[in-house]
Amino acid sequence: MTSDNRWQTSRRVEFGDTDMAGIVHFSRFFLWMEAAETDYLRSRGLAVHWHEAGVTQGFPRVSVSCDYKAAAHFEDILDIAITLERIGTKSITWEFVFTHGGTPIAVGKMTSVYCYNRGGKMESAEIPPELRAKLGAAGA
Amino acid sequence: MTSDNRWQTSRRVEFGDTDMAGIVHFSRFFLWMEAAETDYLRSRGLAVHWHEAGVTQGFPRVSVSCDYKAAAHFEDILDIAITLERIGTKSITWEFVFTHGGTPIAVGKMTSVYCYNRGGKMESAEIPPELRAKLGAAGA
Amino acid sequence: MTSDNRWQTSRRVEFGDTDMAGIVHFSRFFLWMEAAETDYLRSRGLAVHWHEAGVTQGFPRVSVSCDYKAAAHFEDILDIAITLERIGTKSITWEFVFTHGGTPIAVGKMTSVYCYNRGGKMESAEIPPELRAKLGAAGA
Amino acid sequence: MTSDNRWQTSRRVEFGDTDMAGIVHFSRFFLWMEAAETDYLRSRGLAVHWHEAGVTQGFPRVSVSCDYKAAAHFEDILDIAITLERIGTKSITWEFVFTHGGTPIAVGKMTSVYCYNRGGKMESAEIPPELRAKLGAAGA
Repeated sequence: MTSDNRWQTSRRVEFGDTDMAGIVHFSRFFLWMEAAETDYLRSRGLAVHWHEAGVTQGFPRVSVSCDYKAAAHFEDILDIAITLERIGTKSITWEFVFTHGGTPIAVGKMTSVYCYNRGGKMESAEIPPELRAKLGAAGA
Repeated sequence: MTSDNRWQTSRRVEFGDTDMAGIVHFSRFFLWMEAAETDYLRSRGLAVHWHEAGVTQGFPRVSVSCDYKAAAHFEDILDIAITLERIGTKSITWEFVFTHGGTPIAVGKMTSVYCYNRGGKMESAEIPPELRAKLGAAGA
Repeated sequence: MTSDNRWQTSRRVEFGDTDMAGIVHFSRFFLWMEAAETDYLRSRGLAVHWHEAGVTQGFPRVSVSCDYKAAAHFEDILDIAITLERIGTKSITWEFVFTHGGTPIAVGKMTSVYCYNRGGKMESAEIPPELRAKLGAAGA
Repeated sequence: MTSDNRWQTSRRVEFGDTDMAGIVHFSRFFLWMEAAETDYLRSRGLAVHWHEAGVTQGFPRVSVSCDYKAAAHFEDILDIAITLERIGTKSITWEFVFTHGGTPIAVGKMTSVYCYNRGGKMESAEIPPELRAKLGAAGA
C-alpha cells in the first residue's frame, strides 16, 4: 500500500537473524531497511541498482543509522513503515519505522546518493527530473 | 596495541562481504564494528556478552550509525581504530574509524547500554565501578 | 499450500544477497532453506527451536548440502519446494528445490537431529510420537 | 603455513556468528570455507574471482556440503585445515576440517568450476595449465 512518499511492508524474523542473546542481531535491521527500500522503489518501477543502455545507475549509501527501542524475537512479524523524507539535488533520505504488533522496535535512517557509471567508477550526479518524478510525490 | 581508551585492529574484506555493485555491502561495517569492540573488550579481559555467577550481562546496542567515505573492495585490509569515546552512567559510546592504506573508508558510532539479567529479561543498570575501571583509562 | 510432507514457499533475492560476481552468494541458499523449514514447521504448529515447560527443544543441523544449477539474480523470486524426505528415529531429512520461473536454480538437503535440554547441554533424543505425528503425513 | 596442496588458517567466532541456540549458526561455516579458500589461493598468488586483460575469471561453486560434529561458541578460535583434494579438468574440490583446541567441529566440502567471461555470461572452461600449476603441487 502506498500514499505519496510512504510505503508499508513487513518481514518475519528468521532463526538466522537471532544471536546468542536470544534477540535479533542489531545488524539485521539494515538488511530489512534495504529490502524495504527495494519494495518502495519497485512500487515506483525503480531499483536500488540497475543497468540501462550501457550505464550502471544506483543509490549507494553515504550515511545510515538505527535507534533500537525494544528487542525483536524469532518469528516476530515486523511491520516496516518507510518514508522518503527528502529528495535533495543528488541525494535521498529514507526513514524506516519498525514496529511489532504496534510496539516500537527500531527507527532507521538512510541517505543515499544518486550515482552513475559509464564503464569506470561510480560518480555522484544530480538526480534526473524523470527519476525525481518517479521517486516521490508531486512537490517532494 | 592499546593506549588508554583506544585500540587498533584490522579485518580483510572477504568475497561474501561484497555485493553486485562490486564493493563491500554497507551492512558489513556493523559486523566489523562489533568484532573490533570484541577485540577491545578482550584486551581488557571483558566481553560483549557473558555469564558470571548465574547472571547474564552484556552491552546491547541502543544506537548505531555509519558514514561512508569511500568504497572498500574484495581483499582490502581495513584498519579499524576504535575509541571508547564516553563511559556514561549506564551506557558507553564507541567510535570506529575505518581506513585502507591511510584512505578514509568509513566512520561508525555505537552506543551500548549495560544490562544484566537474573533469569528474566535484560534490564539496563549502572555500570559497576569494577567494570568501569576495566573498560577505560583513569578519568575516562 | 501443503500436501502431506510437502510445502511450497518463495523468497525474493535482496540486494544484500548478491556478491561482486553479480549473482546470489552461495551461502544465502542455506538461510532460505532454514526460512522454508520454518514455514513448513509453522504450517504444522511447530518451530525449529522452542521452549516448553522449562525444556528447550530444537532441531540443530548435522549435515547440509547444496548443488547449484544456475545463478540467481537480484529481485528474482525464487520458488522453494520443501519435502520432508525422511523421519528417522532421532533425525529428519529435508529436501529443498529452488526454481525461478520454472528453471532449476539449486537443490539443497538438510539433516537435523531432535535435541532437548533441561538446563544443561542440548542432547539428541528419539523424536516423541506426538511430534512425529505433527511433523509429517501418516505413515511418513 | 603450507605443504603442497594444504593450508592452515583460523578464524575467531564473532558475536554476530551466533544464534539464539547460543552456538554458531550453521550457515557461517560456508563463509569461513570461502575465507579459507581465499587464504589458500592468495598463498599461491591467486584469487576466487579476478579480472585480467579484460577477462573476468573465477571459481563459482557447484556443490557444497558441511557435516557438523560439535557446536562452536562465541570467541572460540577455529582452526581450519584446507586441502585441495582434487584438480579435475574444469573443476576443483576442497576439503575443510574445522577444529577447536583439537576437537572436531565440522568438515566441509566445496566443488568449484573454473569459469571465464569476455563480456557476457560466465562459462565453464578447462583450467589452463599455468593456473593448474599454481593451484596445487606437482601431480595433484
